Amino acid sequence: MHYCSQCGSTVQLEIPKQDNRLRHVCSNCGTIHYQNPKPVVGCLPELNGRLLLCRRAIEPRYGSWTLPAGFMETNETVQEGAARETLEESGAKVEVGNLYTMFSLPHVSQVYLLFRARIVAQDVKPGNESLEIGFFNETDTPWANIAFPVIRETLWLYWRDRAHGTFGLHTGDIVRIPGQLRRYRVHLNY
Amino acid sequence: MHYCSQCGSTVQLEIPKQDNRLRHVCSNCGTIHYQNPKPVVGCLPELNGRLLLCRRAIEPRYGSWTLPAGFMETNETVQEGAARETLEESGAKVEVGNLYTMFSLPHVSQVYLLFRARIVAQDVKPGNESLEIGFFNETDTPWANIAFPVIRETLWLYWRDRAHGTFGLHTGDIVRIPGQLRRYRVHLNY
Repeated sequence: MHYCSQCGSTVQLEIPKQDNRLRHVCSNCGTIHYQNPKPVVGCLPELNGRLLLCRRAIEPRYGSWTLPAGFMETNETVQEGAARETLEESGAKVEVGNLYTMFSLPHVSQVYLLFRARIVAQDVKPGNESLEIGFFNETDTPWANIAFPVIRETLWLYWRDRAHGTFGLHTGDIVRIPGQLRRYRVHLNY
Repeated sequence: MHYCSQCGSTVQLEIPKQDNRLRHVCSNCGTIHYQNPKPVVGCLPELNGRLLLCRRAIEPRYGSWTLPAGFMETNETVQEGAARETLEESGAKVEVGNLYTMFSLPHVSQVYLLFRARIVAQDVKPGNESLEIGFFNETDTPWANIAFPVIRETLWLYWRDRAHGTFGLHTGDIVRIPGQLRRYRVHLNY
């Protein structure tokens, strides 16, 4: 950030009064431009014991498989966002159920909120951001080509929980290991 | 938003290619300035069967009581943010437990994530943003002077669950009723 979005003057990094960390502050109008993590919302869409996955038509990780999920928009609820992303990326209309995983990704300042969901309309077709969609059980899941660690971890938990027949909320962190390309540490709270 | 934070030129509202909603787009460098909801993280800090509340020393709702909570910062996890806010506002060191309520507030584009927490260091003192702190059971909770509907709803659920002895996750929405000052509709999913 170089310029104030309110008045167009330059911003500088300083610690505002009553604050304890560096913020971008406008040198002219004094507006403090806070930056906050972004919620990412999505679904584990279920149909006949399988999960719907989408193959990404966009970077990063073009061509890899993922659950339908994306950045939450303003003026929507987390469940509305999860259903919207699922519809946009796969064409599937879902009934959103319980929150299933909540993962913090502090290195990219994102919070993933992924919900169990039941597909209620089956006219599924890939959206602009998907090359194709597919329905997978545990063994035919493309484990070697899952887009992100947060998705792989959520899918692992799901198939383990399905085998046990209980689906509780799982929360945890996924942290990039410093100096390592695409190596992550997963920490589960419960 | 009037100016591009990258190059200082004016922005205009338009729907970018492959998108379906209006964004602030720079007329010069083309940067798309997305806006997303903000996570608010906090705790229900427990000590000897009571909950710690803080009386607000800042607007909005100066002088009213609230749970320690605030905007999540970049590069932290939700649990780290909840513990940090609790320490900053009350001086209490907590061990963060299970996620207890998740509420969407779409009219202000916020997502509240509130955790049960155990106070592990008792040298509690009000921070800059608190006039005083106190420990309350259900009957002496200042119900008539709670800062926000999301906090009142969370406290109601907590004391009801404590009576029943079970603490599950509750999720829902709190929506401002159009045209009404400080009137809200609460919707609980489960």
